[in-house]
Amino acid sequence: MAKIPVGILGATGMVGQNYIALLDNHPWFEVNYVAASPRSAGKKYKDAVAGGRQLVKTWRPSVGELVIEDANDTGRAVTAANAGQLAFVFSALEMGKDEIRSLEDSYAAAGIPVISNASAHRWTEDVPVLIAEVNPHHTDIIPLQKKARGWEHGFIAVKPNCSIQSYTTPLWALMQKGYEIRRLIVSTMQAVSGAGYPGVPSIDMIDNIVPYIGGEEEKSEREPLKIFGAIENGVIKNAELPRISAHCSRVPVTDGHTACVSLEFGVKKPSLEEIKRIWSEFRSIPQELELPTAPKQPIIIREEPDRPQPRKDRDADKAMAVSVGRIRACNVFDLRFTGLSHNTVRGAAGGGILNAELLKVKGYL
Amino acid sequence: MAKIPVGILGATGMVGQNYIALLDNHPWFEVNYVAASPRSAGKKYKDAVAGGRQLVKTWRPSVGELVIEDANDTGRAVTAANAGQLAFVFSALEMGKDEIRSLEDSYAAAGIPVISNASAHRWTEDVPVLIAEVNPHHTDIIPLQKKARGWEHGFIAVKPNCSIQSYTTPLWALMQKGYEIRRLIVSTMQAVSGAGYPGVPSIDMIDNIVPYIGGEEEKSEREPLKIFGAIENGVIKNAELPRISAHCSRVPVTDGHTACVSLEFGVKKPSLEEIKRIWSEFRSIPQELELPTAPKQPIIIREEPDRPQPRKDRDADKAMAVSVGRIRACNVFDLRFTGLSHNTVRGAAGGGILNAELLKVKGYL
Amino acid sequence: MAKIPVGILGATGMVGQNYIALLDNHPWFEVNYVAASPRSAGKKYKDAVAGGRQLVKTWRPSVGELVIEDANDTGRAVTAANAGQLAFVFSALEMGKDEIRSLEDSYAAAGIPVISNASAHRWTEDVPVLIAEVNPHHTDIIPLQKKARGWEHGFIAVKPNCSIQSYTTPLWALMQKGYEIRRLIVSTMQAVSGAGYPGVPSIDMIDNIVPYIGGEEEKSEREPLKIFGAIENGVIKNAELPRISAHCSRVPVTDGHTACVSLEFGVKKPSLEEIKRIWSEFRSIPQELELPTAPKQPIIIREEPDRPQPRKDRDADKAMAVSVGRIRACNVFDLRFTGLSHNTVRGAAGGGILNAELLKVKGYL
Amino acid sequence: MAKIPVGILGATGMVGQNYIALLDNHPWFEVNYVAASPRSAGKKYKDAVAGGRQLVKTWRPSVGELVIEDANDTGRAVTAANAGQLAFVFSALEMGKDEIRSLEDSYAAAGIPVISNASAHRWTEDVPVLIAEVNPHHTDIIPLQKKARGWEHGFIAVKPNCSIQSYTTPLWALMQKGYEIRRLIVSTMQAVSGAGYPGVPSIDMIDNIVPYIGGEEEKSEREPLKIFGAIENGVIKNAELPRISAHCSRVPVTDGHTACVSLEFGVKKPSLEEIKRIWSEFRSIPQELELPTAPKQPIIIREEPDRPQPRKDRDADKAMAVSVGRIRACNVFDLRFTGLSHNTVRGAAGGGILNAELLKVKGYL
Repeated sequence: MAKIPVGILGATGMVGQNYIALLDNHPWFEVNYVAASPRSAGKKYKDAVAGGRQLVKTWRPSVGELVIEDANDTGRAVTAANAGQLAFVFSALEMGKDEIRSLEDSYAAAGIPVISNASAHRWTEDVPVLIAEVNPHHTDIIPLQKKARGWEHGFIAVKPNCSIQSYTTPLWALMQKGYEIRRLIVSTMQAVSGAGYPGVPSIDMIDNIVPYIGGEEEKSEREPLKIFGAIENGVIKNAELPRISAHCSRVPVTDGHTACVSLEFGVKKPSLEEIKRIWSEFRSIPQELELPTAPKQPIIIREEPDRPQPRKDRDADKAMAVSVGRIRACNVFDLRFTGLSHNTVRGAAGGGILNAELLKVKGYL
Repeated sequence: MAKIPVGILGATGMVGQNYIALLDNHPWFEVNYVAASPRSAGKKYKDAVAGGRQLVKTWRPSVGELVIEDANDTGRAVTAANAGQLAFVFSALEMGKDEIRSLEDSYAAAGIPVISNASAHRWTEDVPVLIAEVNPHHTDIIPLQKKARGWEHGFIAVKPNCSIQSYTTPLWALMQKGYEIRRLIVSTMQAVSGAGYPGVPSIDMIDNIVPYIGGEEEKSEREPLKIFGAIENGVIKNAELPRISAHCSRVPVTDGHTACVSLEFGVKKPSLEEIKRIWSEFRSIPQELELPTAPKQPIIIREEPDRPQPRKDRDADKAMAVSVGRIRACNVFDLRFTGLSHNTVRGAAGGGILNAELLKVKGYL
Repeated sequence: MAKIPVGILGATGMVGQNYIALLDNHPWFEVNYVAASPRSAGKKYKDAVAGGRQLVKTWRPSVGELVIEDANDTGRAVTAANAGQLAFVFSALEMGKDEIRSLEDSYAAAGIPVISNASAHRWTEDVPVLIAEVNPHHTDIIPLQKKARGWEHGFIAVKPNCSIQSYTTPLWALMQKGYEIRRLIVSTMQAVSGAGYPGVPSIDMIDNIVPYIGGEEEKSEREPLKIFGAIENGVIKNAELPRISAHCSRVPVTDGHTACVSLEFGVKKPSLEEIKRIWSEFRSIPQELELPTAPKQPIIIREEPDRPQPRKDRDADKAMAVSVGRIRACNVFDLRFTGLSHNTVRGAAGGGILNAELLKVKGYL
Repeated sequence: MAKIPVGILGATGMVGQNYIALLDNHPWFEVNYVAASPRSAGKKYKDAVAGGRQLVKTWRPSVGELVIEDANDTGRAVTAANAGQLAFVFSALEMGKDEIRSLEDSYAAAGIPVISNASAHRWTEDVPVLIAEVNPHHTDIIPLQKKARGWEHGFIAVKPNCSIQSYTTPLWALMQKGYEIRRLIVSTMQAVSGAGYPGVPSIDMIDNIVPYIGGEEEKSEREPLKIFGAIENGVIKNAELPRISAHCSRVPVTDGHTACVSLEFGVKKPSLEEIKRIWSEFRSIPQELELPTAPKQPIIIREEPDRPQPRKDRDADKAMAVSVGRIRACNVFDLRFTGLSHNTVRGAAGGGILNAELLKVKGYL
């Protein structure tokens, strides 16, 4: 079976390079189109990223030979699409929010679906913010989105910020079993790869932590509410709970965001044993569909007293599983735990690819 | 004026070495007696710590020439005391809790006051756990303690765990102004020096954090309640509030514990401006008495969005001030902020020395 | 085909755990016997290493169920061998040198070949120190060793120190083409995993390097001479050249030793182009035999100006290849370059396994 | 006595900020004039560096109130000089080399002496590259420089690269005692602060080292030869020896460059004892003149087997002393040792200030 040809917008950036590394040998998709800023356009991909020293992983030589297109030139993408060389794009654009929003719109309007990593469209009411295990049903908004915009084939689906990935799925697993979560205070210790390249200067990360990441706390407090929301009247209406307060810090870790969570249940409160059972048994649509990038077990419980830890647990199940540990009663709320997920795989390119796999199986791609 | 001769129990350990470094050139106290395990006894201090590579700071050559005594030999200490060579001891003992408790008792019983860094006596009801700016009035328990034990001259006073130093003083400053604090959820990012030497293996601290420190969360949740407590019937009765939930993590930082705090006030809630005013104006007994080791301003507010940071703020005011920043409303409770203090100075030897200065001025030493 | 049952002596230590992780799914060998100190004996392997938090990798559940034997009990090993459950052992013993030497001797004398990671026997004249690509012909000493000791089936073969692995193969590749290397000054920057667990305290590795590793420079200067030596009169006679001077430093890196090398050729001096050609074309016996653990290309040249780097290059070709870069003329000698190899894979367990594969194919196992 | 008013060109950069921190409370000099790029001109200094988060140290509030001048506007500097508000400038300019060279020339031509940190003029034949303890006699070139250029009052003096500071003084101390040094191979492990701000991305410095620093090896091999050179015919003629080969690596250390040195003496070879004696007794002009910033003992010998280390030794004697250790015979050349100096103090702003003190005493300022 021929693979589906896909494109990467922002292919030379850190997230773009991650997409290319993770799509290497993907069973369904094949990178066939790489686009970036006009500055890189016309170069071979391998030459454009030669100075880009950030990535450890390498990729098939054939990708290196692809000539980079100008990401602003949607006409060129349409030509490729018409020639059967481009079915959809992953957007890893790094520009101003307004520019990204408008450029992603152009691709969708031109008939090319956009699976985006960018935050630009996360608050567009009819654009789903997908975590494939949590709100796969939000894909139902896509026909409404297309209709509202008059787009025939194109659409936009995005993924949430990397900072919330380590606890949103565990929360959802409990909510799904009927346990309301009212309030949540979370403190994250986030890896430097989340800041892209060059990102955080090393002089700020040696013998130091930085208890602040611009915009991160606001995203962490709002995005879960959209993900937990419901489709009503053609838009996604945010959930009202849980109320979230986030403290986001940067720590000297390459990959893997850790979150220390205290939460309050509603009237119905599960026991710790019940929580562990729910989490270890949790499976969702991606597991049922056996999507290629889906972790077998989305939530892995570490029983050791001092886990999860970024270096030891971030790569669990192709770096797509969330690891949780330190499950214990909270002295103020009901439950405390520590969650961990790989921010550039589960929290970025890997999550985007899983979303694309879900959309493919659901017939949107 | 001749200086007061003091001793260090556990002088060769990491905290003991810190005491010796910080007491170098102290205007009132002079290290004149060093005691450690029988293994070190009989050696010159400089020889005993030659292999002890942990400390950056050095000290007066004369201290290096002191011959180490056996810390278990209280008789030897009494002889020194009788000869006017030892007025009191700082305890930085590193043994089992029960052994420390009993050894500290022996010194006190023998007439030698003990200012301790160890956790052994923190839950002894008539032993004060002192933060000099917060509960200097708890020294009033000392006569009762002496009487209850039949100790004439000796007594025991301790300091709390290093993990709580960055927020206990700010909490107290608010409480003192009539603002009840009901609940508090705190997540700490603690330096490796808090684990002593050798402490945390480097393989666990490179590209990693460890979201667990044995026993630390329990101490963090309980000790502030004793510090905020009141003397009743010859013992210190714990305060009931605030209810505290702590998440304690180890991060790759040499010195300086950071705490991300969310807290809920009682009915009366100060504005952010009021909070900042209270904190920047806060002064207490050590400042009034101009104790040599007291910071001029116990709570320093950092207005930059990304401060305090361990490497940049831990040394503020001789490493004795607490730095706070990121003062903002909490999305779940009332107030969020980040506190930072130097764990081996403010949180260990420096705090002990300040306690001794307070006790000296109050006439207990 | 049934797999060959192998044992690990010192199975609970860091190197022992690495052996078990790397032998998982090995096509020829299967771990069937685990031995450690009497303290661990009798426990299930998974329980004995539960507190051993050092390893990121996991292994087949069946290994966890193995009951640990007392490594000192060679009789038990003989019983296992007689029952066809143990063909040979990998020694990752962590004890005093004399104890290791004598224990390894006991196993060999009892008929159980020992492939050792320990340094104890590296200077035993008839014990080969093998780097499979460099001196596979040194296996010829084994029949002589067995004869001299009166051992019928057992023998001992060891591997060299991890510090020299990143440049010994490149040197050999040049020597083999007829280029004498006279003198060499090398400065290494070595990963903390080389010190085992707990190894280097984190307080010494945050914002710091330690320009000293006990015994490492002596090993680095002597071991290559035995590896480059020749069998004469039943012993391995050391080569006289190159004369080596080593500076060994510890740096805050988890895995991967880096070496900066300056070397002087003899009269015949290759051009930089010739050197690059020799290195990239170098293949040896393990490649010809297609041994399962052998890297396809033993020496990988990085052309980027700032490579090799530990985090980016240590895992090259299953972490078994040596990466070299910065190949340039030396301002004092003839050639400068930087070499890098994975110290716990190529430099420890992986190198030992490759040696066993070589010995198997040669008929010694 | 009124202090001498000095200016800082490039005052907002990392080195510029260091100058301001180190000149705080300087007994002779007072920062009175700060200049930077047109972008910063017109702002108060404290506002211009508010976002500049790199510096730990703070400075007198009065410096923060200074209004930044445009560094390109030499006319403004002349006005200040004429008004007695500016005696000379420290140049910490960060621009292209040609621009720096021409701008420094303009200041000197306008009558304002320039003590520079920049590399632009290091190879100008009549500009001295000063290490105050090594070649204070090179100040004799200044009258010749002024005459050749027709400058009446202004002149230019520079300092060398930070990478060579940890071994140039030890070499000189030996050379001065009549021991020729013929050849030297050095491998440095350099701190990230040497790269300025933002400098090296943290993703490249966590669990990693980078065995390359652009241009650093060339500087390391050439600059000592000018420093060891002699004034002949109005220019500084380079020394011919030692021949140097440098390997320069970046390591995750905030401050403090470490160098592992192997060197070959000429015919006359000192014993290790003689070397230690020469180094510990070495004093030079800055010590004789008791210049305020001069270390009391320029070369400190550490006898511990594992020192010097950056975190423990960089701050020795106000961070102005060089620490050396691991003094031992070299297996290839004659002598091996490890040197360490603080790159942003001794190797940058502190070294520049010491040069200015020397020039002041010699009557050039």
